[in-house]
Amino acid sequence: MLNQLPLPSLFSGRSRHYAPSPIRAVFDLELRPGTISLAGGNPDLSLLPWSEIANSVSRIINQDGKYALQYGTTTGRPELAALIAKVMAEEGIEADPREIIVTTGSQMSLELISKLFIDPGDIVFCAAPTYPGALHAFASMEAHVIQLPGDSQGISPQALRTALSVAKASGRKAKLLYLIPSFANPDGATMPEKRRIAVAQICREFGIPIVEDNPYGLINFEGLGSAPPTLRMIDPANVIYLGSLSKIFSPGIRIGWADAPTAVHASLVPAAESTAICPSVLSQFIAEAYLRDLDWRSILAEGTAGYRRRAKALLRGLGDFMPEGVTWTTPRGGFFIWVSVPESLDTSALLEEAIEEGLVYIPGAAFYIESRGHHELRLSYSLESEDDLYEGARRLGKVLRRGLNLAA
Amino acid sequence: MLNQLPLPSLFSGRSRHYAPSPIRAVFDLELRPGTISLAGGNPDLSLLPWSEIANSVSRIINQDGKYALQYGTTTGRPELAALIAKVMAEEGIEADPREIIVTTGSQMSLELISKLFIDPGDIVFCAAPTYPGALHAFASMEAHVIQLPGDSQGISPQALRTALSVAKASGRKAKLLYLIPSFANPDGATMPEKRRIAVAQICREFGIPIVEDNPYGLINFEGLGSAPPTLRMIDPANVIYLGSLSKIFSPGIRIGWADAPTAVHASLVPAAESTAICPSVLSQFIAEAYLRDLDWRSILAEGTAGYRRRAKALLRGLGDFMPEGVTWTTPRGGFFIWVSVPESLDTSALLEEAIEEGLVYIPGAAFYIESRGHHELRLSYSLESEDDLYEGARRLGKVLRRGLNLAA
Repeated sequence: MLNQLPLPSLFSGRSRHYAPSPIRAVFDLELRPGTISLAGGNPDLSLLPWSEIANSVSRIINQDGKYALQYGTTTGRPELAALIAKVMAEEGIEADPREIIVTTGSQMSLELISKLFIDPGDIVFCAAPTYPGALHAFASMEAHVIQLPGDSQGISPQALRTALSVAKASGRKAKLLYLIPSFANPDGATMPEKRRIAVAQICREFGIPIVEDNPYGLINFEGLGSAPPTLRMIDPANVIYLGSLSKIFSPGIRIGWADAPTAVHASLVPAAESTAICPSVLSQFIAEAYLRDLDWRSILAEGTAGYRRRAKALLRGLGDFMPEGVTWTTPRGGFFIWVSVPESLDTSALLEEAIEEGLVYIPGAAFYIESRGHHELRLSYSLESEDDLYEGARRLGKVLRRGLNLAA
Repeated sequence: MLNQLPLPSLFSGRSRHYAPSPIRAVFDLELRPGTISLAGGNPDLSLLPWSEIANSVSRIINQDGKYALQYGTTTGRPELAALIAKVMAEEGIEADPREIIVTTGSQMSLELISKLFIDPGDIVFCAAPTYPGALHAFASMEAHVIQLPGDSQGISPQALRTALSVAKASGRKAKLLYLIPSFANPDGATMPEKRRIAVAQICREFGIPIVEDNPYGLINFEGLGSAPPTLRMIDPANVIYLGSLSKIFSPGIRIGWADAPTAVHASLVPAAESTAICPSVLSQFIAEAYLRDLDWRSILAEGTAGYRRRAKALLRGLGDFMPEGVTWTTPRGGFFIWVSVPESLDTSALLEEAIEEGLVYIPGAAFYIESRGHHELRLSYSLESEDDLYEGARRLGKVLRRGLNLAA
């Protein structure tokens, strides 16, 4: 019927920010068998008790199918919220289940918060580097994203104060500070208590809320006793906390949550309804069974020990194979090691060669909104075996040496 | 720590449009046992073969758990897209699985389309009345929503042409026409072929794409042979088709899809990634098993026969109990009957009395963006028994008669 229509000419201004994620782009690559992936943040599911989970789900369908397969409430099941509060208690958070909204994963929580707070041009602060999914969620609501410098202890409070002062003078509205305070993606930075308090105080002073994204807090190599308090506990009235079952149980069921001050919670609910009606009710039942009937704490402890061993294997490989001038972080939890290479190398350009060598990683540029990070890259140790992680480091060393014109 | 912050003062302009849905508000009411709900659009799940589904899911977890509980691709599983194409074929649509993106339910599809097309102030056309979830999705991206008059055959092509001409002259950009062409929510209107062609031609002429939302097309009381062609078949290059498993299998697994022209599909993918990463992989596996291994066509046919019997029971009740001056639609498919009451009655105000009588319905105002519909209401026959539907009509008659000061 008639000619082809130029539909993209009708797309919104915000659609310009819908670039495909560089991380997903790496996943879509056709990889040779034998390729070692240090790219994804996929959790290791090998410790899950499959037959117990299968029995649980079967029981859910047989006994409660007419509820589990039906529409549910937008806020999520109170039974799950109560169990989520117990998960949060493991990190010392005293959560009120009534302030928890269950979402279709943390990315959805970020989307809802972006829609709720951000008008085009509003400022959102976050760390440099940070999680690309957060950058995209903010940018897709046309935020002006400012990434703040920091160190292994997270963003610099002084840089935050300066940036907030500049923002105030600029006439733009500063809306949110987004942080992953524990075992950050991608650089593993973990904010000690003193800095958390300083950052919380500055945000209070300037009147902007903090979004505390905490998918990795429970994957703590040094035990939960060593963890600093969450920002949500330091200033509950000014912190929106995001949690997820993706790293501690399953990303495939898409269950996350936001634990937010009452006024924010009240507005997240209609935003969530207009976005997805309700989280999967079946997924909620499955999550409840996992957190209620199975020994998830032991599975998590064993999983964390495995991640720790894997991190060590990758670190050993980096120590053995990295050429001079390459530095990297030493993780104390989470999934990632952040590598800095000499400035003569471009990690985006080198990815193709790495793939030739049978290795994928995420180029550093993925973690910045502006054109930066070309001399950095992220390695994940969450999924491959210790041997493959060590071998992955060897392959990376080969690629970097060749790029530096060094003997292999 | 310090004083309470006025966080809502930081909310975005679009957040003003996040009113809780009047439909969900009805669901949240504390209802007396024995209350008859003609409010929800919940499908009847009683015909689902629970033990077969339980066995399927158990097998999925045991055999494919490490995939089904892991992250998946944003577009969804190709296996599911191929099965969805077969569902669409039941209505005569020749879909290319590569143009299908699996979403977390149709509401999510509407959200993605809204984000992709709508800048603040852009015009979106739809029927008066129409599905509140669509109105909210458009309004939450700050669209200027215009609802067009129509009849039992859907919107008036002449009204559409006039509105598009006015829009063109106004300087606002017209972006989308949203339609439920078959067994529309809430008034059951079904567009015959001739009108579909006329509407498609007008949209072509004015250069705006059509969003064809079709959750009820397969719930056709007269058999699928009687169905007019879908808009997607009439003008594939200008129609974005939305499908859902919520009404023909399960809303609790949250699986819908969009079948869109290539250029739109390509941009829906990063929008979906930034919104929810991927649809639940477990839900996709379950949907595949249902559409591949079970006799879903027979279950659907039996279910449709049940909805038809229920519609008849409700119609019989309306015939027996409605006072003079009340009119209603006669559904040929779908879940709903749309009732018009005399202008002296306000259906929002009467809801409280109806609840006292043990009956809930959705007041007509829910289906309009402007303050309209006060003399209309929606009845759903999808979930209650035939006896309860008949009794529901009796209770409604009692409430309306009392409102009209007639003898009961």
